[in-house]
Amino acid sequence: MTGNGRSPVTVIGLGLMGQALAAAFLKGGHPTTVWNRSADKATDLVSSGAVLADTPDEAVSAADLIVVCVSDDDALHGVLDPVAEKLRGRVVANLTSGSSDQARANAAWSAEWGFDYLDGAIMTVPAGVGAPESVFFYAGPQKAYDRHAEALALLGGGTTYLGEDHALAPLYDVALLGMMWGTLNSFLQGAALLATADVKASEFLPWAIKWVDAVKMFATDYAGQIDAGDGAYPARDATMDVHAGALKHLLHESESQGVNAELPRFVQGLMQRTIAAGFGQNSYASMIELFRAPEK
Amino acid sequence: MTGNGRSPVTVIGLGLMGQALAAAFLKGGHPTTVWNRSADKATDLVSSGAVLADTPDEAVSAADLIVVCVSDDDALHGVLDPVAEKLRGRVVANLTSGSSDQARANAAWSAEWGFDYLDGAIMTVPAGVGAPESVFFYAGPQKAYDRHAEALALLGGGTTYLGEDHALAPLYDVALLGMMWGTLNSFLQGAALLATADVKASEFLPWAIKWVDAVKMFATDYAGQIDAGDGAYPARDATMDVHAGALKHLLHESESQGVNAELPRFVQGLMQRTIAAGFGQNSYASMIELFRAPEK
Ligand SMILES: NC(=O)c1ccc[n+]([C@@H]2O[C@H](COP(=O)([O-])OP(=O)(O)OC[C@H]3O[C@@H](n4cnc5c(N)ncnc54)[C@H](OP(=O)(O)O)[C@@H]3O)[C@@H](O)[C@H]2O)c1
Ligand SMILES: NC(=O)c1ccc[n+]([C@@H]2O[C@H](COP(=O)([O-])OP(=O)(O)OC[C@H]3O[C@@H](n4cnc5c(N)ncnc54)[C@H](OP(=O)(O)O)[C@@H]3O)[C@@H](O)[C@H]2O)c1
Repeated sequence: MTGNGRSPVTVIGLGLMGQALAAAFLKGGHPTTVWNRSADKATDLVSSGAVLADTPDEAVSAADLIVVCVSDDDALHGVLDPVAEKLRGRVVANLTSGSSDQARANAAWSAEWGFDYLDGAIMTVPAGVGAPESVFFYAGPQKAYDRHAEALALLGGGTTYLGEDHALAPLYDVALLGMMWGTLNSFLQGAALLATADVKASEFLPWAIKWVDAVKMFATDYAGQIDAGDGAYPARDATMDVHAGALKHLLHESESQGVNAELPRFVQGLMQRTIAAGFGQNSYASMIELFRAPEK
Repeated sequence: MTGNGRSPVTVIGLGLMGQALAAAFLKGGHPTTVWNRSADKATDLVSSGAVLADTPDEAVSAADLIVVCVSDDDALHGVLDPVAEKLRGRVVANLTSGSSDQARANAAWSAEWGFDYLDGAIMTVPAGVGAPESVFFYAGPQKAYDRHAEALALLGGGTTYLGEDHALAPLYDVALLGMMWGTLNSFLQGAALLATADVKASEFLPWAIKWVDAVKMFATDYAGQIDAGDGAYPARDATMDVHAGALKHLLHESESQGVNAELPRFVQGLMQRTIAAGFGQNSYASMIELFRAPEK
């Protein structure tokens, strides 16, 4: 205990990410206890002032806030189930990636053993831990989050409490990751097409960036249309029929220039079904009806 | 002629877009001649000072710069082929949407008849014409673009000359439109998933916007990796194996929460093939190899 009044923190799991988390707590002046299955990964942290616990039992007993970051949910239970009764009254903040089903199951498990469970999601890489722009999401009991908000905020300037429903953290996590792949895949499609006219990806990049800023404005309008919930989807910019017409050009270019045409063909399928469902004169927001429904 | 020294402009095609284009030239003080198959669409423009030509022949004879914006390439040839010899020495700036094949064929056609051909693309809606942020692309002979750069810039503050290859305008057009659909589809996937936890699309929106700004930085790194052309694709942030692992969560969430899982499943297929091609330890930029190649 350093005597600076900062609350002790325990970090369980010292992989690439766990080491970065523990280092951020140490840097913020929190007495930090660590535990990892392979103890050698604690060496650097111990020289920076961390206390290496010999057992999970010792680790969880050292702090009110226990941050867990291991490979997956099975690894978490492998470590914590044997010491579950020592968790009573404490806060477990789980930054291990997992599903909303696991998050809700872990919440039930915490109720059983009398501790507070926060499910978290990390929207950055280890090198981004502690940076002002890095986003960490938490969901679960607000009082537990509030109790450790100051320590958790050390992990990233964008640390955010989402709400009581534990599922929110994994859902935001995958929803945002999905946007990463969606944006990147369509960037790669464009880069592949432009390469046929000897345009470099880095020449395309600034236009892609500028254009994505315009797309944000379309998305802002569509979010309002979706939330209105009236199924109206007014086509203030372009109708689905116009989108489908423009998509034909992308598909044709991809085919005729000899690049992969699967992505435009896939999107064409989605648009055609939305139009077939009667939304030809509606905005792109009407596509939400398709995304909401499981395929038949 | 208004006598203000501004060069005369002709606009052919007065649909939603053509009317906006002609209005912008008039507002900029250019003597503007217009022609449309259905003459009644010229009424408002004529009251604003436009001259309505009786025939395409009369229209093309009235200006050195002839801007065409009709439905498609067939419509353009239907209007201009009969008067092609009147085009000699003039500049045709074609803002009709079309393919790179059509752009190059029109360039050959212009060489045959001795006029300069610019192929253009409009990255905005009619209401955006003339706005400082609106992007218009042109490709073709630079001297022809330079001759009318001042007039063309009236259509949007982002008016840009791309290069001599006429294909550049339609290729940039579809590449950017593809990014719009890619970004919007993944936004809708995320919105559908979050709706299962009662999160509104407009609550998801600010996170989506913030996150897309982070994705721009990933894309910046990847563009450099693609242009390096050495096939190295170093995984400075995350490997393809890590991406594929995270994608499983998105797919699982979509399936288990009962929303449409086609998009994650489609992306999984792309990732799996990239990994099977040996890029499991490389960055997401390695996906370009798949996007570049036509499917077998
Ligand atoms: N790295 C990132 O960029 C990033 C970003 C966002 C989220 N995440 C998430 O953060 C979590 C950890 O990622 P990481 O990058 O730190 O992974 P990592 O470097 O592979 O570390 C995995 C950690 O889990 C431990 N572990 C695995 N199986 C275990 C078991 N059965 N019992 C006890 N401990 C076990 C490992 O212990 P040993 O050292 O003994 O093997 C190690 O501490 C994952 O859920 C990941 O999805 C990572
Ligand atoms: N609107 C947009 O937001 C937007 C954005 C980017 C690009 N564009 C492109 O701009 C072009 C025009 O779009 P728009 O919105 O103005 O379409 P529109 O309102 O449907 O107008 C079509 C125009 O083409 C003319 N036309 C069609 N077939 C013809 C033919 N055979 N002979 C002579 N004229 C013919 C029409 O004449 P009539 O009036 O006699 O029918 C009308 O002037 C399209 O290529 C579109 O892809 C539009």
